[in-house]
Amino acid sequence: MWYQKTIKLSPKPRGFHIITREILQEIPEIGDITTGLAHIFIQHTSAGLTVNENADPSVRHDFETHFNRAVPEDITLYEHTLEGTDDMTSHIKSSLLGSSVSIPITNGNLNLGTWQGIYLCEHRNHGGSRKLVVTLRGE
Amino acid sequence: MWYQKTIKLSPKPRGFHIITREILQEIPEIGDITTGLAHIFIQHTSAGLTVNENADPSVRHDFETHFNRAVPEDITLYEHTLEGTDDMTSHIKSSLLGSSVSIPITNGNLNLGTWQGIYLCEHRNHGGSRKLVVTLRGE
Amino acid sequence: MWYQKTIKLSPKPRGFHIITREILQEIPEIGDITTGLAHIFIQHTSAGLTVNENADPSVRHDFETHFNRAVPEDITLYEHTLEGTDDMTSHIKSSLLGSSVSIPITNGNLNLGTWQGIYLCEHRNHGGSRKLVVTLRGE
Repeated sequence: MWYQKTIKLSPKPRGFHIITREILQEIPEIGDITTGLAHIFIQHTSAGLTVNENADPSVRHDFETHFNRAVPEDITLYEHTLEGTDDMTSHIKSSLLGSSVSIPITNGNLNLGTWQGIYLCEHRNHGGSRKLVVTLRGE
Repeated sequence: MWYQKTIKLSPKPRGFHIITREILQEIPEIGDITTGLAHIFIQHTSAGLTVNENADPSVRHDFETHFNRAVPEDITLYEHTLEGTDDMTSHIKSSLLGSSVSIPITNGNLNLGTWQGIYLCEHRNHGGSRKLVVTLRGE
Repeated sequence: MWYQKTIKLSPKPRGFHIITREILQEIPEIGDITTGLAHIFIQHTSAGLTVNENADPSVRHDFETHFNRAVPEDITLYEHTLEGTDDMTSHIKSSLLGSSVSIPITNGNLNLGTWQGIYLCEHRNHGGSRKLVVTLRGE
């Protein structure tokens, strides 16, 4: 069984956002899969996806702090700066975190650990609505 | 053909550990797959998985050194510090390295390069036993 | 439907290189898949794969700059230095970027965003020809 859908996320401010529920609302078909995998892919190069802590908002805040420190928004470091100080840094951050996540499906649900959620990592100041391609397969 | 199993790794100290053999011992079913993929997912947000060099222990030692330098254990940098100096840094490191690895299966075996092994990246001082969900599919 | 092939890339200098076309030339079978996934795996531990911007060469140049700054080629920081100053740094960079990418297949093509391409991240000064294992599956 294969199922694929393109999802448009609601626009989000710069930062790290839990989107597990927003994705699950769009793929009720996951309930038909006993054993399988969900692949979630972002069709952009200035935002990423990762799996991390789903409870304390300070974790997402500290992610933003860390990545701003590790990938400094200092325009003298980069050549690719046409769209502003958040242009090249967003490309780098998106590859550090990755453009897709793969999660096991077990008995009709994502088989995440208790404390895991899916993050949209929005690196642009005004990223707008982001498109995801979700692919489910299994039996 | 789909096969899925939850594995409990033996507890490991903080650092980088090769777990290829520990995983393979739990999934003899891989021998039935001629062409396929293995997906290995960690159900935790303070440890990660990656593929890297399987021979020289100094590589794993240098990984620990690098990540401690790149993600400093300085409590003044973070808000999320309830569980100690290794709390928030472990969340960040786990997303830098990733929560899953996908590896081709060819003729009943993981089709890794000669020098590749699967690493558990244990970022907590006392992480305990970690749970993996292994999903095999193929034909 | 499962399809798997090992590809030898042409040797490339140190840096970040778009290889989307070089991969697609080797897998015409992708045209037979309406809905599926492509998995591309690199069998090396000193080079990586990622998805990022496919247009402006300055992006790939800035990637090289960033990773050289973030993972300094300072031999006093590492134990594993037998093969030179680009030895241990290449292992670290390859795990930061990852050893595989997974991309949706839709109507016989990779369903990448408009600005996305597949990068070979070559971290060694003389990496030579790199081997990829490409696995396609779908219906």
